Amino acid sequence: MLTDHQILRIPGPTPIPPSVQRAMNLPMIGHRGEETSELLKRIHPRLKPIFGTEQEVLILAGSGTAGLETAVVNTTQAGDEVLVLVTGSFGDRFAKICETYQLKIHRLDVPWGDAVDPEQVNAYLQNHPSIKVVFATYCETSTGVLNPIQEIASAIQSASDALFIVDGVSCIGGVKAKMDEWGIDILVTGSQKAFMLPTGLAFVAASERAWKVIEENPQPRFYLDLRKYRDNLAKYTTPFTPALSLLFGLEQALNLLETEGLENVYKRHQLMMEMTREACQALDLPLLTADDTASPTVTAIYPEDFEADQLRKVLKTEFGLSFAGGQNHLKGKIFRIGHMGYCTPADVLQFISLLELGLQQIGVKRDFGKGTIAAQTIYLERRK
Amino acid sequence: MLTDHQILRIPGPTPIPPSVQRAMNLPMIGHRGEETSELLKRIHPRLKPIFGTEQEVLILAGSGTAGLETAVVNTTQAGDEVLVLVTGSFGDRFAKICETYQLKIHRLDVPWGDAVDPEQVNAYLQNHPSIKVVFATYCETSTGVLNPIQEIASAIQSASDALFIVDGVSCIGGVKAKMDEWGIDILVTGSQKAFMLPTGLAFVAASERAWKVIEENPQPRFYLDLRKYRDNLAKYTTPFTPALSLLFGLEQALNLLETEGLENVYKRHQLMMEMTREACQALDLPLLTADDTASPTVTAIYPEDFEADQLRKVLKTEFGLSFAGGQNHLKGKIFRIGHMGYCTPADVLQFISLLELGLQQIGVKRDFGKGTIAAQTIYLERRK
Repeated sequence: MLTDHQILRIPGPTPIPPSVQRAMNLPMIGHRGEETSELLKRIHPRLKPIFGTEQEVLILAGSGTAGLETAVVNTTQAGDEVLVLVTGSFGDRFAKICETYQLKIHRLDVPWGDAVDPEQVNAYLQNHPSIKVVFATYCETSTGVLNPIQEIASAIQSASDALFIVDGVSCIGGVKAKMDEWGIDILVTGSQKAFMLPTGLAFVAASERAWKVIEENPQPRFYLDLRKYRDNLAKYTTPFTPALSLLFGLEQALNLLETEGLENVYKRHQLMMEMTREACQALDLPLLTADDTASPTVTAIYPEDFEADQLRKVLKTEFGLSFAGGQNHLKGKIFRIGHMGYCTPADVLQFISLLELGLQQIGVKRDFGKGTIAAQTIYLERRK
Repeated sequence: MLTDHQILRIPGPTPIPPSVQRAMNLPMIGHRGEETSELLKRIHPRLKPIFGTEQEVLILAGSGTAGLETAVVNTTQAGDEVLVLVTGSFGDRFAKICETYQLKIHRLDVPWGDAVDPEQVNAYLQNHPSIKVVFATYCETSTGVLNPIQEIASAIQSASDALFIVDGVSCIGGVKAKMDEWGIDILVTGSQKAFMLPTGLAFVAASERAWKVIEENPQPRFYLDLRKYRDNLAKYTTPFTPALSLLFGLEQALNLLETEGLENVYKRHQLMMEMTREACQALDLPLLTADDTASPTVTAIYPEDFEADQLRKVLKTEFGLSFAGGQNHLKGKIFRIGHMGYCTPADVLQFISLLELGLQQIGVKRDFGKGTIAAQTIYLERRK
């Protein structure tokens, strides 16, 4: 096997475009110099449309989890009542962070693979008026559910004054977000998903309403203090050493997103999801999520007649193709396909035909080509 | 469209493996220092099995054509009678170089798409005993023919003492070559094909018999004087400034070839050819070459019911997929698919499914999936 040939189709980290990789190889510059200021000045306004906000999108050096913790520590203190909408392991992570800071947690768990029901959130908040913050996951990476964030935001607003904090790590940049319009108070994402970058940048934007809470919140925080990032950005600098190579890469990733056009980027992700789902259905591979709550960035398959991990193993060994496995109680039960960021319909056709081969190789009887044909057909129907 | 997404499937230059790209980014070193000597010492013995020779494989900074001209100017002088076996535009290139040096050229042309008949070469040489050199092309890039070099070598040997000079540019590293055993006197290749490198290195090896001619040949040559390369290599240096970044890359490309194992590399190329040809046949796409003379590195298709260039255009525009067009009288008539070097069966499945989509998009009626299924089937049959 040609060893230096990897096909990375996990829901992040995602492959890096060559031009982004090249940009990250630019020579290091002084992080307190004029060039860094200019870089920040160029980058920051361009993040706003991706978040759908007029607020500044602040950048921390850290993984997505640093962004989630930032949202928690800047808006809450011990004893605060919060509602965490848990649809999978990343909803669970929000809950764990809240536990660490001794918040009083209400959990609204839905079965993994299902989405949050906005009505239920509304009812819950009406019954619990002391809840100050609601946490939700936009795309639940562990299941491939895209929660109806806009509807959840409305449901919250009509029942409560609670802040709405959203983990958008595995979808922002690949799906539409209208933070201001929908009424999201804090939106978080990371660099290693639809932004087509390595892990290392966390992006956090906060609404005016959230900023009022953040300003007055007595919770101790130093590195994750959002105020520091905001105040320094106003002077086009950073409170701590910025991850400059990743910022070089980010500038080029933004070039790519803007050249394609954000609407087209979202359409491409939608199309890749549809191709993947149609192919799986044609191959009798049960999908974990329903059509109307499926994420354009990741698809989970729950096979009934074979071991998910056996398929994953043969695809990795034979073709260097990586799909992700399941997490928690879905470990070994499902496999997950990432189709976001640096991924195109051509890549979808490739992993579908390899999936067909892999099934054959582990002795699962499926007709060759059925998935490919379904994906090709939907491509031609929907591409315009 | 995601602009930074290219699928390069022309018969060279071929894509560069990431680890080779990284190796080429190593810091520059002094070309007359110990490190360069050590690099040459490490690289050179590893080229011999690829050429199938005990002779040194000499490296020039230049494209494949520099290698071809090197073979000509080192072995011939004006007025020498030579036989050029022309099966396409690269056979023609040998003839043009020979013309430039005022050799007396005998041409044996076969229709483009056909291979040389060794019997015919034998007969021709018996009728023309004054021919000193025979030139042939191993893989004719313009048609995808793999000439029967071993049989041609035998046919020459049984008729004549002429040197046998072979252009192996678009196949060496992807198909077997047994220079010493078969009796090739000079074998040439370039870096931008099955070696998985950018253009810029020409490789030339000469037999003992050829070296005797080279030593005594009065033809003036300076940069292309093979003796200089041989004599300098004996001291682990080079006559002129070596293309060091390409040599860094070459060392890593050799690592990849050796890790996979040369026999496995050849099998992979054979399999990719079979997958491509079976798919084309399933899709009623006429192949330019016959099965027994088809090259494992490039396949030419001669469509009867559509414009080759229209298909190529839609594939490039829509998917960033590049196939090559035809040359000379086949311009616009054929398209050529490169499947060599940094290319795997997974890549073949990708371009086949895109080819199916492209046909549909230009209004050519073919069943979706037929080519994919044929390629998948042959993969499973032949992979071991």
